[in-house]
Order: sequence, then C-alpha cells, then structure tokens
Amino acid sequence: MIGDSLTVAELGEFALIERLVASLPPEVVTGSRMLHGAGDDAAVWKPAPGNLSVITTDTLVQNVHFRLDWTDWASLGHKMLAVNLSDIAAMGAAPVLATITLGLTGSERVDDLVSLYGGMVGLATRHRLLIAGGDIVRSPKAITLSVTVVGEAAPDRILVRGGATEGDLIGVSGTLGASAAGLALLAESGERGTATTSGVLVGAHLRPIPRVDLGRLLAQFGATSAMDLSDGLVGDLPKILVASGVCAEIEESRVPILPAIRALFPDRFLEFAMSGGEDYELLFTIAPDLWEPLARAASEIGSTITGIGRVFSRGSTPSSLWTVGPDGSRRVATTGAFDHFG
Amino acid sequence: MIGDSLTVAELGEFALIERLVASLPPEVVTGSRMLHGAGDDAAVWKPAPGNLSVITTDTLVQNVHFRLDWTDWASLGHKMLAVNLSDIAAMGAAPVLATITLGLTGSERVDDLVSLYGGMVGLATRHRLLIAGGDIVRSPKAITLSVTVVGEAAPDRILVRGGATEGDLIGVSGTLGASAAGLALLAESGERGTATTSGVLVGAHLRPIPRVDLGRLLAQFGATSAMDLSDGLVGDLPKILVASGVCAEIEESRVPILPAIRALFPDRFLEFAMSGGEDYELLFTIAPDLWEPLARAASEIGSTITGIGRVFSRGSTPSSLWTVGPDGSRRVATTGAFDHFG
Repeated sequence: MIGDSLTVAELGEFALIERLVASLPPEVVTGSRMLHGAGDDAAVWKPAPGNLSVITTDTLVQNVHFRLDWTDWASLGHKMLAVNLSDIAAMGAAPVLATITLGLTGSERVDDLVSLYGGMVGLATRHRLLIAGGDIVRSPKAITLSVTVVGEAAPDRILVRGGATEGDLIGVSGTLGASAAGLALLAESGERGTATTSGVLVGAHLRPIPRVDLGRLLAQFGATSAMDLSDGLVGDLPKILVASGVCAEIEESRVPILPAIRALFPDRFLEFAMSGGEDYELLFTIAPDLWEPLARAASEIGSTITGIGRVFSRGSTPSSLWTVGPDGSRRVATTGAFDHFG
Repeated sequence: MIGDSLTVAELGEFALIERLVASLPPEVVTGSRMLHGAGDDAAVWKPAPGNLSVITTDTLVQNVHFRLDWTDWASLGHKMLAVNLSDIAAMGAAPVLATITLGLTGSERVDDLVSLYGGMVGLATRHRLLIAGGDIVRSPKAITLSVTVVGEAAPDRILVRGGATEGDLIGVSGTLGASAAGLALLAESGERGTATTSGVLVGAHLRPIPRVDLGRLLAQFGATSAMDLSDGLVGDLPKILVASGVCAEIEESRVPILPAIRALFPDRFLEFAMSGGEDYELLFTIAPDLWEPLARAASEIGSTITGIGRVFSRGSTPSSLWTVGPDGSRRVATTGAFDHFG
C-alpha cells in the first residue's frame, strides 16, 4: 500500500493510526457488543445487558511529555491519572478502576515513586476510582508512565464525537490556554511557579483538573457530542466535526481566557487558547434550548461553561472549522493539532 | 519509612510493588465491587450483577524484553498480545478487548508496524478479541509496547492464586524450558531458528501460545488456583503458595521437558525448565479426584497437562517450595524469579 515504506515520523501519528486500524480485519475491530471502537476518547463495550463500560489509556514519556526538572513527583502522579480521567469524563462516564504501568530506569528513589502514587490518591479518592495493579518494567533510557482507566455509563448516556447536529451550540468548560501559558513560563524561567499568577498557570499545566462530574452532567443533559481538549481547540474541534459530518464556526472573542494570560502574553494569549493544548477542559455540542438548564446545573457543581460558537450543515463541502476574529474577519482555521511525530 | 531513600534497583521490583500498594489508602484499593485488586494475574471487578470483568496489562521494552535483531515484527506483535492473553487465561476468563499503546522513536517503518499489527490478528481472531484503540506516543530512546486486555468470566468460575489446598495436585500445561532454550539459541548464534529443532525452541520464545481455552477449562473443572508461568516455575509457584498459605513439593523428574532441550543443553535443561521463565504455560492446583476428567477434557481441546507435585499444609512454617531431585534428594528451592531491576 502507498506510504508503507515511509517512516512513522514521515507519515505522522494520525495517519499512522488510521493505517494500522485499517490493516485489521473487520471482525477484530467491531462486534455486536462493541459500541464504539478505536477513534473516540475511549472505547465502549457492553459487559452485560443494560451496562456499558468504557476504557482509555494514555502514556507519558520523560522528556517528551514531562521533564523532571519542571515538575514534582506528586504533580506527575496527578497528571498521569488526570489525562486518563479526562478521557473518561469526555465519554460522560464514571471512572471505576485504573491499572498503572511504570517503566523505570532503576535509579529512581523509592520515596519519589511513593510521592508519584500519592499524587494519584487525591483524584482517585475524589472520583471513587480503584487502583487495580499494573506492571513495573525496566525502561533504561526514559521513564514511561502508562495508565489505563475503565469507566462505566448508562447505555443511553454515552458521549461520543459523532453526534453534533446543525444548530447545536459549541461549549467549553473552564478557561483555555492556561496550560500552554504555564508551559511557556516553565520554558522561559524553569520556575515551578511560586508567584501567585504564574503558580496558577504552571499549576494548570502540571496538575490539570479532569472534568469528570461535568462530563456526567453533559451526558445527563443530552449533549450531542463531547471530547476533552488535549491538542487545542483548533486541533480537536475538527475531530468532532469530521466524526459528525458537520461544519462549525467559533468566535475567538468568546473563547474564555484568564485575564492573567492576556496580561503576561499580550501577543500569544489567543494562540495559547486556540491551539496550545493540554487544557483537559471539555469541548461539547448541545441543542440551544438545553444550554441554560445545563449552565445552571454546571454552576451548582462548581463548573463553568462558555458558548463559543455553533454547528452548521456542511452541505457538499468537507467538514471545516471557521473562526471569526475579534475584528469580525471570518476564515477557515488550519488544524493545529500536536502531531507526536511532526 | 525504612527503605524509602533506596533506589528502585536497590529495593527490587516485587518489594517496590508492595511498598507502592501499601502507600495507597484502603478505599483506593478495595471496594465492594472489586473482587481481586493488585497482586494476581489480573484485577477482577463486577460490572453488573452476575458478571465479572478482569483486566491485565503488560509492557515490552526494546532491548529489555525484545531485540529487533532477534525477532521479526509479526512475532513481536504476537508476543505482546500473547503475554496479556496468558494473564487472562490464568484467571479462567475469556478475552473481550485490548487497547494497544505504541511508544515509537519515529524512525520505524510503517510497513513494519503493519506487520506488528498483523502479528496480533491471528490471536485476536482465534480468541474473538476486539482491538479497541489505544495510544501512540513518541518514545525517543527505545520502542515501548504496552497492551491492556479486558476479559470476562462467570462469577463462580474465576481462577485466583489464593485457593490452593492441602492435598491438591500441582499441574502445568505443555512443556517447560522451551522459551529459555530458544533464548539461549538466539544469544549464542543470533539465528532466528530455521533448522527444525531450534526453530521450535526459538518459536516458543518469540511466539508463545497463551492457554486461553485451557484456562477456561480449568475454571470449569474447579481448579483451586492458577497463574501463568512468566518468571519460571521456581519463581512463580511460591506466589501461589504464599497467596494460599500452603507449602508444596515438586518432583523434578516429572517436569515436562522437550527431548530436544535435553539433547541440546544436557547441563542446562533442568535450569531452563525450573527457572527459565517466559513459557506462558499455566500452573495450577486441583483436587486429585478431578485430575483425570480434566486431563481428558484438556486432551479433547488439544492441550496436555502434567502433574508435577502436590500441595501440603505449611503448619507453623512459612510457605515454602520443596523440590525432589532425580536422585531423590529433597531440598527447599530458592526462588529464581526474574526481578526486573535485580
């Protein structure tokens, strides 16, 4: 097949995933008990009539996804669990259990690893997640942390990427760009953020909050699609649009951004918010008449949601994302997803 | 706590796992729906009344668990799935789905990765396993392959390590030592085994067969404990003994070993069989009166089982494993488990 003599770096992550999934025979990727396979935030299957389970896995590699001089072990433990819980949240599911794989060089200090585990406990306790074992292997060159989380959902309450419909509003939770701003602060100064402002931003990068309760609320209120924002708004929203066969327009002036980011990075705040990545906020679509009741319910659990645009029919064109700038200029956004090999 | 200033290599893998699990609060490791947490071949939980799910995860790291000059990509794909299916087999469960995480340097060829996936398809198809997505990350220094498999079992038919009882017979499936002999052949010659004899042994190392059907049969016939042999008989059997609070004696002359291994390695065949590791055969205990019916049923599905010893009460002594040599000498075996950091 064309492209097979390429290297992974030449082909790119997303094309590689497509190529590998396409190489599998149909009976290996679909089945009557498999509601959603590869391609969403998590896979969904039916362990018993009336029950759905979801599963997701994410890996952090030293010096690719984290640097030990920029984080502490407890924050790293928090983050490795948080990025997985965020995928569970994006399905509208409740987490059940996690397995943990540590790839270690052998020179790590045991008390640092106990801190790593300690960093998971807060999230695990809060979301009633059980840590169900895993694997420890030697990884001589770089620490590799891999977490798999299983969750469950009621069958009629699962959030997938493919359900966005013409006329839906597009919403995001929290604010965007704080993680990228925190990363920029770390890269500039190496400081872990003891000052108040930078501490908030660096904290957003090192210890993202998975929106588990909000995800379940979105499912309960009938959101038509959802995903978590790991690759940035401009990188991730097209995944919903392609899966749903629709177009969308977002207004940049409506994107929620902390004032501190505008103040610290007057030239880059919009870039951080639109394509910075790693915010782990939820991106979703919902019918306009459900917006107000959802926003009230979200507020009651301490979450904020902000409407940033709308879904429209793609007609005969490919699914595309339009952005409207602060000056009213309208253009097709180029995708800005982080390709792990790009 | 004592030992926390040690490094991982100094403390060792098994002690590290104990230390990390002990660092978690009880509500994070146990719950009413969690039947078996960390410490068995797989964790077991109840997704719905009348159903059990199991989950296991295993990781292979380049130049630790495999070398690209000793294996081909299809064999590597087979093995990374097989070692996980073997854990599912050891629980007496049926595999349902797998998630795959590839940590890649970027310089891999796409067609090699398609071969890797192709190597999984035979096993997946045979066991009706669905491949449900996963994660691809950049891993600059070494390829890291991580698989998580979920399976299911009937609630009264789960095999764990802790049920061995005084008087039980100890059995193993297939033969032992072929994987270690194959590895020795690879190390000596670097040959991948085109000659018939060495081909069988190298094949046992590169493409182990997970005993999924036999595991379900063991559960059906009421085996009292089971695990898969990844760290060698002398390394793994003590895990059953400690979990069950019993002692055991095995007769070395009864351990099934291929004649080819005795011929090729006259000085090492017993070492390969007793502590070579990576055989991925099933080790189990069962009441003596159930042995014959089990052996007949195993034969009908093309499996062989061999009785190698018996379980006895530990009295007031610690759980220990005795071996009886070919000359009748009886001694306490030292554990020979592969410690990933030892």
